Amino acid sequence: MSIAEVFHLPQGFKLKDSDANRKLIGAAAAGQPDAKAVDKLQTLRIGEKISDLQEIFVAAHAPKLLIILQGMDTSGKDGTVKAVFGQVNPLGARTVAFKAPSNAEKDHDYLWRVHQEVPAKGEMVIFNRSHYEEVLIARVHEWITAAECEQRYAHIRDFERMLSETGTIILKFFLHISKDEQKSRLQERLADPAKHWKFDPQDLAEREHWDAYQDAYERALKATDTPYAPWYVIPSDSKTQRNLVIASIVLERLESLQLSFPPGNPEFSKLKVE
Amino acid sequence: MSIAEVFHLPQGFKLKDSDANRKLIGAAAAGQPDAKAVDKLQTLRIGEKISDLQEIFVAAHAPKLLIILQGMDTSGKDGTVKAVFGQVNPLGARTVAFKAPSNAEKDHDYLWRVHQEVPAKGEMVIFNRSHYEEVLIARVHEWITAAECEQRYAHIRDFERMLSETGTIILKFFLHISKDEQKSRLQERLADPAKHWKFDPQDLAEREHWDAYQDAYERALKATDTPYAPWYVIPSDSKTQRNLVIASIVLERLESLQLSFPPGNPEFSKLKVE
Repeated sequence: MSIAEVFHLPQGFKLKDSDANRKLIGAAAAGQPDAKAVDKLQTLRIGEKISDLQEIFVAAHAPKLLIILQGMDTSGKDGTVKAVFGQVNPLGARTVAFKAPSNAEKDHDYLWRVHQEVPAKGEMVIFNRSHYEEVLIARVHEWITAAECEQRYAHIRDFERMLSETGTIILKFFLHISKDEQKSRLQERLADPAKHWKFDPQDLAEREHWDAYQDAYERALKATDTPYAPWYVIPSDSKTQRNLVIASIVLERLESLQLSFPPGNPEFSKLKVE
Repeated sequence: MSIAEVFHLPQGFKLKDSDANRKLIGAAAAGQPDAKAVDKLQTLRIGEKISDLQEIFVAAHAPKLLIILQGMDTSGKDGTVKAVFGQVNPLGARTVAFKAPSNAEKDHDYLWRVHQEVPAKGEMVIFNRSHYEEVLIARVHEWITAAECEQRYAHIRDFERMLSETGTIILKFFLHISKDEQKSRLQERLADPAKHWKFDPQDLAEREHWDAYQDAYERALKATDTPYAPWYVIPSDSKTQRNLVIASIVLERLESLQLSFPPGNPEFSKLKVE
């Protein structure tokens, strides 16, 4: 069984039955005493391999890779970008953090700003939040009805299918944390003035909608898990496990592409630089 | 029967059975001796009404209007823009002429550059050529297979449905000219040095693919005519008839929206400017 299969959204998925603190791979799963250090080192090594493969992307001018990170506040989207993709050469790789839409963005359909940011050939793009907010926060706050939400699921499936059929590999990660874990992470941010920049009082207001968010996530994941754009549910109460799992799935997918540098030009070898 | 219904792509549409020189509305259809002058004046008047209604668009900040013009070389896309939309206030209206894609555009899916240009709320956008080139020239020159072309029809239907469901009114016009009419228009361009800037030797090469283009158009129109983004087949051998028909259909659609200026603010009436 591949690592992707282990974490792929299961049939009949129920978010409440999914343990956010599971340790299914690495030294942590094996119960090694020094598991944390071993798994961190392993993630670092995988990150290097991802970086090497991404260089081939750029050289081969193919394919397009889109990675989507979604999760509740404090679930570790920023941390994942740093730990898993921190070693990737920014040449040909970008992270896009979608904030609340601007007025110009609101005047267009909600996929407009997202489509502009999708990867080009040979590019790796990481979405920190994404068009999925339009079926999460938008639904939780009832800015849209259930019927409109269903319509959006269909738009999103269509959009991702088009991207896939035009050469984009799409991997979607739901960073799953427990309500208790969020509590302690928010408390930690409040306790440390150096972390206050990451805190928004709005986060506490959103936390009150915890159950509605869990429900919106469960529905959205089920409605938009497709063969061409699968969802992976990542147990994220442990940052170490989260990073190791995501890094492993990305590497597994990149290795499956069997990428190689474009063939050299024999004529070039004969050239002499004066 | 509305004018739109007269020109809407019929069931079992066959392009070769469609007379590009039909005169179905206006003084020309009635056989008036001064038909040309009368119909031109009528188009001008309709253009004024379109301009008035578009002002309400801007004021009301709704809806979004997308007009797509497609047709063979010399079919009169530029002329239509001038004759029908020439009086519209550029504030809130734009024409986008899609040329051969740039390298950056080719590195993305073919809807990427198109999506960027769709109308915002309260905006009227006219596409002079469009994403339809991706199932026309691309298919005629066999840059894509028949199966890929079918896939693109589906992408386009999905894309236009999403635009429609997020508030865009879409009207698509196929400017239908006969092969003889194209011959005389191309010859005319060659005879007049002042028109040489509009001539591209490539036009003659494309003309050799006339039958393949007719076939590609017929298939594309049939595959992408939908309730939310209908195709209108415009007899365009006569420029006067073409302009009158398109102007009439656009006006009819805008009038059906029953737009009105946003309500005034009674407080404003009491303000005194010193």
